Amino acid sequence: MSVELNLSADPVELTVALVNTPSVSGEEAELADAVQRALVEQAPHLEVVRSGNTVLARTNLGLPARVVLAGHLDTVPLNDNLPLRRTGSGEDELLHGCGTVDMKGGDAVFLHLAATLTAPRHDLTFVFYDCEEIEATRNGLGRIERDLPDWLAGDLAIVGEPSNGVVEAGCQGTMRIELRTTGVRAHPARAWMGVNAIHAAGEALRRLESYEPRRVEIDGCHYREGLQAVRIAGGVAGNVVPDECVVTINHRFAPDRSVADAEAHLREVFDGFDVTVVDFAGGALPGLGAPAARELVAAAGGEPVAKLGWTDVARFAALGVPAVNYGPGDPLLAHKQNEYAPAAQIRRCADVLRRFLTG
Amino acid sequence: MSVELNLSADPVELTVALVNTPSVSGEEAELADAVQRALVEQAPHLEVVRSGNTVLARTNLGLPARVVLAGHLDTVPLNDNLPLRRTGSGEDELLHGCGTVDMKGGDAVFLHLAATLTAPRHDLTFVFYDCEEIEATRNGLGRIERDLPDWLAGDLAIVGEPSNGVVEAGCQGTMRIELRTTGVRAHPARAWMGVNAIHAAGEALRRLESYEPRRVEIDGCHYREGLQAVRIAGGVAGNVVPDECVVTINHRFAPDRSVADAEAHLREVFDGFDVTVVDFAGGALPGLGAPAARELVAAAGGEPVAKLGWTDVARFAALGVPAVNYGPGDPLLAHKQNEYAPAAQIRRCADVLRRFLTG
Repeated sequence: MSVELNLSADPVELTVALVNTPSVSGEEAELADAVQRALVEQAPHLEVVRSGNTVLARTNLGLPARVVLAGHLDTVPLNDNLPLRRTGSGEDELLHGCGTVDMKGGDAVFLHLAATLTAPRHDLTFVFYDCEEIEATRNGLGRIERDLPDWLAGDLAIVGEPSNGVVEAGCQGTMRIELRTTGVRAHPARAWMGVNAIHAAGEALRRLESYEPRRVEIDGCHYREGLQAVRIAGGVAGNVVPDECVVTINHRFAPDRSVADAEAHLREVFDGFDVTVVDFAGGALPGLGAPAARELVAAAGGEPVAKLGWTDVARFAALGVPAVNYGPGDPLLAHKQNEYAPAAQIRRCADVLRRFLTG
Repeated sequence: MSVELNLSADPVELTVALVNTPSVSGEEAELADAVQRALVEQAPHLEVVRSGNTVLARTNLGLPARVVLAGHLDTVPLNDNLPLRRTGSGEDELLHGCGTVDMKGGDAVFLHLAATLTAPRHDLTFVFYDCEEIEATRNGLGRIERDLPDWLAGDLAIVGEPSNGVVEAGCQGTMRIELRTTGVRAHPARAWMGVNAIHAAGEALRRLESYEPRRVEIDGCHYREGLQAVRIAGGVAGNVVPDECVVTINHRFAPDRSVADAEAHLREVFDGFDVTVVDFAGGALPGLGAPAARELVAAAGGEPVAKLGWTDVARFAALGVPAVNYGPGDPLLAHKQNEYAPAAQIRRCADVLRRFLTG
């Protein structure tokens, strides 16, 4: 039996239907089919396109500005947390289950707006994509960027990741380096004939421990950087002075620094050490100066906050599209077995975006 | 065809025959058979006993003192270094191949003496044992200690491990500890919510790096201690602040310290850290004050030196038998593919021991 999604009814009920259609990364076909069918049938004012398990829809009204609303359809693996459970009622109702927070609440808000905003004040593009929760090479948004780039063009992008219904602006960059110390093997009974590479890593750990991460304010958003060893490995055998030790270090940097800036900074911090960049992803400036972004902040009320983790917001920023995270649910509950979203927050997000997009 | 060993001829030729009978740990049967047969046939003045792949032989002359001469028959695994090759000639001849240094040169010296010293001035016990190069639980000398303890009794033990033909006295002890730091996991983008266990290990590495090992003189032998990290491991995943890091540390300590002393010292050095003792072996005091030991040092000439590595000398010391290492070959070449022993050193060791044992 195929899933029926009612897009124009309560977005909370729509969230329930989306969550109860499991869609672990790579297995989004059933949900993408239902989303595509619902958009074609219930949003005839939209151009709808399918690419793999990504569903795209847009208005073509010739308006001066375009807002992109993007949400991934996939979830992390189930953890004995489906079907969805509801507790409380009215303003206190909570939706529990895999995907309630990350991010079917946001998807429901966007799908509801897609069907009901027939006369928006900006042109709208909706992107419901696959494979966000796994390796970056399979990310559906990355595939659209390569295959259908005009579908990501716009003046503001809203990524519906959980943000507690607060505008989270930009995101921090991330860089992973390997710091390698070398030495000379010897027998521990004649240690003076060798050089211990693990001992040599001590100075790097000391610099990590005493490192004072920057705090940066941009467009009123407060970013907090980080520099953390995430792995250390060294040793040959129980009776050998080791000749190599590798420390893997993750740096999270505020979006006023480019990837090149971040690398230069790390090379300065670890001056004297052999440093190799393993991977990186640039941050995204909050971009709250863009007119559409200002309108959204005004509609949402309250103060925008800095996004500390890396999200697909950075893909839009790299394309020159100001981008924010805005969606229901507490991001700290994402990927947790007990994730839950407040029903009232889902409705509030839909109301805020409707106000913003109808003006 | 079974191996024939000529015990009374040149110990260099005997070394060649022993080396060309491969006897990797656990596979000593053929060589033990040949040793047993040769002793029975060519040393009728000795009581000969077989235990597993260990061959024991002794005089029972009722003399006031007894000297034990012990050598292991096994080698580390072959490394494309058999059959034995000979280079040079006369005083400069070298024997190359697996076991030339560790320790068939020493075995040949002892076997030669077993057959030719028919009227020694001390009673003699010879122990040719198996499985020295592998885990301690399989060590043949340990088995004899449990099953035939009177065969290890004596007033001096000489272990024929390579010592460059110099008396190496006593040996250092060894202790391995695990030092564990703990923390609290967090996402690196919100690192201040966690505690990094790898960073916490930095202070332990700093103490290791600045540690000044003791140098100790006992009975004229100079011991040089050591404290070395031999392994470090920590890390959960590339995007997790790690909550555990383990440093494995090997301490080599001079024989004036007991195992308990060594542990107390390590707990003091790493005060504030979680320390677990993983394994240990006590050292052995040089014991050069014993009359037979003084005679041996006089016969060998030169200054005795401290043994830095751990050898089976410590087993004898633990039994209350003063024990030294004395054998041909450079210990630094042991376990190397290119190990080689000078033929002249093999003959010189036989001459020294003959002088010592005939007085």
